[in-house]
Amino acid sequence: MNCSEKLAALRAAMKKESLDAYIVLTSDAHATEYLPDYWQCRMWLSGFTGSAGAIAVTMDDAQLWADGRYYIQAEKELQDSTIKLQKMGLDGVPTLQEWLTNALKENATVGIDGRTISADLYSVYKKEFKKKKLNVRLDLDLISEVWKDRPAFPNGKAFEHDIKFAGKSRREKLQEVREKMKKEGADTYLISSLDDIAWLYNFRGTDTPKMPAIYSYALVTQTEAFLFVEESKLEDLKSKLIEDGIQIKSYDEVLPFLKSCKEDSIFIDPTGTSARLLEAIPESLTVFEGPEITSALKARKNSVEIKNFKLCYARDCSAFAKFIKWVKEAVHKETLEEADLHEKMNGYRKEIENYLDDSFSIAAYMANAAQMHYSPVKGQSAKLKPEGFLLVDTGGQYYDGTTDVTRTIVLGELSQEMKKDFTLTLKSMIRLSMAKFLYGAYGSSLDILARSVMWENGMDYKSGTGHGLGYALNVHESPPGIRYNPAPSALVKIEEGMVVTNEPGVYKEGKWGIRTENTILAVKDFTNTDGTFMKFETISFCPIDLKAVDKSLLSTEELKWLNDYHAKTYETLSPFMNDEEKAWLKEETKAI
Amino acid sequence: MNCSEKLAALRAAMKKESLDAYIVLTSDAHATEYLPDYWQCRMWLSGFTGSAGAIAVTMDDAQLWADGRYYIQAEKELQDSTIKLQKMGLDGVPTLQEWLTNALKENATVGIDGRTISADLYSVYKKEFKKKKLNVRLDLDLISEVWKDRPAFPNGKAFEHDIKFAGKSRREKLQEVREKMKKEGADTYLISSLDDIAWLYNFRGTDTPKMPAIYSYALVTQTEAFLFVEESKLEDLKSKLIEDGIQIKSYDEVLPFLKSCKEDSIFIDPTGTSARLLEAIPESLTVFEGPEITSALKARKNSVEIKNFKLCYARDCSAFAKFIKWVKEAVHKETLEEADLHEKMNGYRKEIENYLDDSFSIAAYMANAAQMHYSPVKGQSAKLKPEGFLLVDTGGQYYDGTTDVTRTIVLGELSQEMKKDFTLTLKSMIRLSMAKFLYGAYGSSLDILARSVMWENGMDYKSGTGHGLGYALNVHESPPGIRYNPAPSALVKIEEGMVVTNEPGVYKEGKWGIRTENTILAVKDFTNTDGTFMKFETISFCPIDLKAVDKSLLSTEELKWLNDYHAKTYETLSPFMNDEEKAWLKEETKAI
Repeated sequence: MNCSEKLAALRAAMKKESLDAYIVLTSDAHATEYLPDYWQCRMWLSGFTGSAGAIAVTMDDAQLWADGRYYIQAEKELQDSTIKLQKMGLDGVPTLQEWLTNALKENATVGIDGRTISADLYSVYKKEFKKKKLNVRLDLDLISEVWKDRPAFPNGKAFEHDIKFAGKSRREKLQEVREKMKKEGADTYLISSLDDIAWLYNFRGTDTPKMPAIYSYALVTQTEAFLFVEESKLEDLKSKLIEDGIQIKSYDEVLPFLKSCKEDSIFIDPTGTSARLLEAIPESLTVFEGPEITSALKARKNSVEIKNFKLCYARDCSAFAKFIKWVKEAVHKETLEEADLHEKMNGYRKEIENYLDDSFSIAAYMANAAQMHYSPVKGQSAKLKPEGFLLVDTGGQYYDGTTDVTRTIVLGELSQEMKKDFTLTLKSMIRLSMAKFLYGAYGSSLDILARSVMWENGMDYKSGTGHGLGYALNVHESPPGIRYNPAPSALVKIEEGMVVTNEPGVYKEGKWGIRTENTILAVKDFTNTDGTFMKFETISFCPIDLKAVDKSLLSTEELKWLNDYHAKTYETLSPFMNDEEKAWLKEETKAI
Repeated sequence: MNCSEKLAALRAAMKKESLDAYIVLTSDAHATEYLPDYWQCRMWLSGFTGSAGAIAVTMDDAQLWADGRYYIQAEKELQDSTIKLQKMGLDGVPTLQEWLTNALKENATVGIDGRTISADLYSVYKKEFKKKKLNVRLDLDLISEVWKDRPAFPNGKAFEHDIKFAGKSRREKLQEVREKMKKEGADTYLISSLDDIAWLYNFRGTDTPKMPAIYSYALVTQTEAFLFVEESKLEDLKSKLIEDGIQIKSYDEVLPFLKSCKEDSIFIDPTGTSARLLEAIPESLTVFEGPEITSALKARKNSVEIKNFKLCYARDCSAFAKFIKWVKEAVHKETLEEADLHEKMNGYRKEIENYLDDSFSIAAYMANAAQMHYSPVKGQSAKLKPEGFLLVDTGGQYYDGTTDVTRTIVLGELSQEMKKDFTLTLKSMIRLSMAKFLYGAYGSSLDILARSVMWENGMDYKSGTGHGLGYALNVHESPPGIRYNPAPSALVKIEEGMVVTNEPGVYKEGKWGIRTENTILAVKDFTNTDGTFMKFETISFCPIDLKAVDKSLLSTEELKWLNDYHAKTYETLSPFMNDEEKAWLKEETKAI
């Protein structure tokens, strides 16, 4: 089926249901970041392969909304379709809900698969739809009707995340959640977020790409705890969960269970709970809304997790350092293509203790690295030359951590401008590493410590300076974040035990992209009459390419930081290296 | 009546209405910052004179919630009452709504003067009250029943704010508001905020202390505009308003007018609209909530306002400089008391062109200045000595601006620690002055540019770095603010034309308080492919006491900033000075 045929089939299905419009979103029922094939409805319908976007289909029109990362790609991929592109965020471009409200007549009816729209987004839509008194149906999954060979719903396996990795038992975590529920005044708490459920019940699984989770719901009361999941996915885990007082019900049972809920009140996170589930909650219940209660607990890593995380990073970075050594040598001897490098990197990683799964490596050479969401495709990706910069952003999934490190590797000669950009990036990264801040500061307030280096030079990187990091879970874990312009709901205080990335960069279109990314842990520094002061401890140690550093651009304190960091890098990684590798690392980490 | 008698009378009134509790808040019906006597209900009932606080009275208990600024003062002032103090913000201290919900039986009834509670706060209360199914009555004003000699409702006068000061006509402003209303999809817009109404309709008035406004409501539709105000307050202004198409109705008519509103939708700001008015809006209307539409327009000063504002500051700072000269000399010759200084300062100010009204001067000597909300009382305030620091924070109301400047004045010998603290404060102030930032940055993201100087030295000031400033209106004007830990709703992008203060400080209990406060204007710097870059232009010029500056703590750039600033200060203020004053100013502003 081509796009026109798909649209025609969809419109026929819409007609049967008397719908005037149908909205296709990029989401599963849990707001999961990386979607399995089953949930790639927007991609299937439009051919647009980006990670985000939404389509509105009316009887005579179809439009796709894509954000700034994807303007060029979406334009190209929609070329042969009848779907028009709406460039989100540009002046004068309406939102999907504005466009649709404008396009439809009063009292028209819009269909959405109610699993794929969060309660939050639905309330934004409804506010706009009110203006034309539009009706909405959430109970339809028209894509399944027209996508004849839609892939099967993920059918992975769940397995225990041992206490020696998790650090806290299910019972302890449930206790903490129940205390927070009392504070919120909620009798019941429905959890939709897959990594939150995996964290709470100490399991991991294979349903979702790049993150070891399982499609499930959890529901907690003061006396009971439930897991809604296909039993066949549990195997050995089932008896362990039951032993800890967790009742197992099937995944689809969550909807009728909620409908018949007799408690007084329920807590949900409207950003991750589907509108269909929210609408199923009886009117008699008071609904309290807020970020997942579990997320704030999960974000502050416990002492076992922190100890493991540091060891995990030492092993993972030793693999990355070996890769760097290899690529710097190999570029002189063989033809390397960006797309080949992930396999090579993962080869080093697979050997590591507690390896759980492949996660990601993005290798981007020179100008390609200036595209912030570049992803090399085998056969079409750039060949490396023994000159300029190779940016490698890579991470693995381990039972004892999730890693995410970027290094910009010098393959040969550099211009003065390249060195300046590299050193400004380093300076920016060091500034956040050295931050001293009062307990209570938001991540958003710290961003400028790094970013001001760029702003003072009339530059900016179009990303946050850092994001939270999961522990054997999502590489992008909310709520913590270091970005200067967050949504108001994303204002999060940086607390002891939070782990975030530190990744400023310089991206010059058509020239090069530079990023240096470490992982930092928030720790207490000291307390005095003015309050408790916090600082960051860097937990990722991997050589920063000295060939690109212009010493004259660093302050005395910054230079000291770099030399101390490199001394610690040698100390941390050398135990995992042979003599040749050690000799190389010694040179790469020498004081300057 | 003493406090017990007042409480007894209140409880008798509560009993008559079958109330189980009554809440007394510190507010008028418009969330006005500085309250006239009529609205000082909480102060009258409790004897606590702070600027904020709330009381919950049950049949057998009464508690007052005060924030950290007022723990000591409230404890002292409540000493002879039966009202107990709840220290807001301390660990384990319940909120008023938590305490009350806990104290009452299920289905109990709580009374509040519905004028004094914002729609926002009411929804927070309701959420908690739900837990015990408490009923609320908003239609009672029991304080008026028991406060026999309650002062009269303010009966001031309104007068035209001429276009030569305002820069934009009422019609232009209404046009801008109506365009924003269209974007919000609201047919009607009810404005409760007094300074917003004064701004929109280009008038000022004398109802409210420290801010020239009038008790009123405004209501705007696409075709009509209303002002709800006692006609007697308008005099000449009435015909001008009518000429511009504004219909006048009495202040009390707003409630029945809303009740009979037949539009489809209404926009209100829930932080400034009283719960009583929100509850009066018919169910048939869709209510859109957000910050006052006018506030965002008012915050970006127009070119006439900016030009005037700069001239206003030049005149006002010349008065302040003359005061500084006087106090530095007089302290050696006569006995000066903190409380006397306001009158002296205002003496200089009254002579100034476009003077509208007295605003405020807080003079605090040495340790008194470490109390951030110190207010000297005549006869009990500190006597100045020719040594140490005198902090003076002062501003005036003019037809062409509202000013707010702080200088810490050296009266004599200083220790090395005092010089260090003064210079760190200066450094901190300069850092924000020199900020370069991308268009779109929140004020909260910029705070750390100033504050990190303190944090790096293990210190903190317990205030924002800056607040928005009204133009012949409120000295604290939202929405803009420079503070690192705002409420999510207070995240505001710093836009071209916004005027904010820049006022870091060092406050050492029992020793001294230091603050250096300028006013800065956000302006565009340049635009390139990375975006539009912004910077601040300082618009207040007043000498910074060089006797307290330790040059060695400033960077080359910071020292250059200081010397440039002082050169500009001489240039700006000297036209308003005689020869003797000029000679003095020359010395105070010399390059170092």
